[in-house]
Amino acid sequence: MDQLTTLLRGFGSRSILHQQAIVQSLGIPANDYISIDLLNELGPLTAGELANKTGLSTGTITALIDRLEKIGYARREKDPNDRRRVIIVPTYDDREEIKQAYQPLDKAMKELAQEYSEKELELINQFLAKAVSVLDDQLQTK
Amino acid sequence: MDQLTTLLRGFGSRSILHQQAIVQSLGIPANDYISIDLLNELGPLTAGELANKTGLSTGTITALIDRLEKIGYARREKDPNDRRRVIIVPTYDDREEIKQAYQPLDKAMKELAQEYSEKELELINQFLAKAVSVLDDQLQTK
Repeated sequence: MDQLTTLLRGFGSRSILHQQAIVQSLGIPANDYISIDLLNELGPLTAGELANKTGLSTGTITALIDRLEKIGYARREKDPNDRRRVIIVPTYDDREEIKQAYQPLDKAMKELAQEYSEKELELINQFLAKAVSVLDDQLQTK
Repeated sequence: MDQLTTLLRGFGSRSILHQQAIVQSLGIPANDYISIDLLNELGPLTAGELANKTGLSTGTITALIDRLEKIGYARREKDPNDRRRVIIVPTYDDREEIKQAYQPLDKAMKELAQEYSEKELELINQFLAKAVSVLDDQLQTK
């Protein structure tokens, strides 16, 4: 069980390094762009929701969005369902350079997945989903 | 399988945020300390080995070690086995504030692990070890 927490922390550290390498290779000025990659996963959110999800302060989020907007990686839009709300729409994941940057890792992880049966993958996916939700809880209590 | 890569990326993003929150709560000046957390996992390494493992340039590593040394989180020592080599010894993981900062996450992950049988945990550990090694390969080709 100690091995598990070491592995999870080790996986986290390497994810940080991998994202840092991507950010550097793309020449994105704000290194802290890495901290809102989950904007892409969670879809358009308001700045307040993003602050809540990331555990970052709203001030930090505002500065981040400003930087991302400047380089065309996100934009602020009025929520079509509620014109009084402003949502942050991620626009980076469709970009060719982002796709290409993640492509080697995605390919290698898909090759790894092929070593496992469907049933085994189901267990691994279920575990990872729960681990993600544990991290979410931790972030929201910060 | 797409779900797996999304989960792995999602886990990575949240690890980044979690480490950022820890760094902030500790008031560590260099935010990029997070990028060498694996120094703790891999034990004393030379600056060159650490650059290789992290995919960071030796210049970046030198500046990082300087900052960590300044706040007492690492120190440079002569390798006892080869006095011509200088190794970087991590000294942060024994610190009470670091232990306490990781404690709630470790506790929650151990609780999660208890939902699984020994055999299931073995599969999950084995998968995570392989995923870590995939990330290592990616970092070394950067």
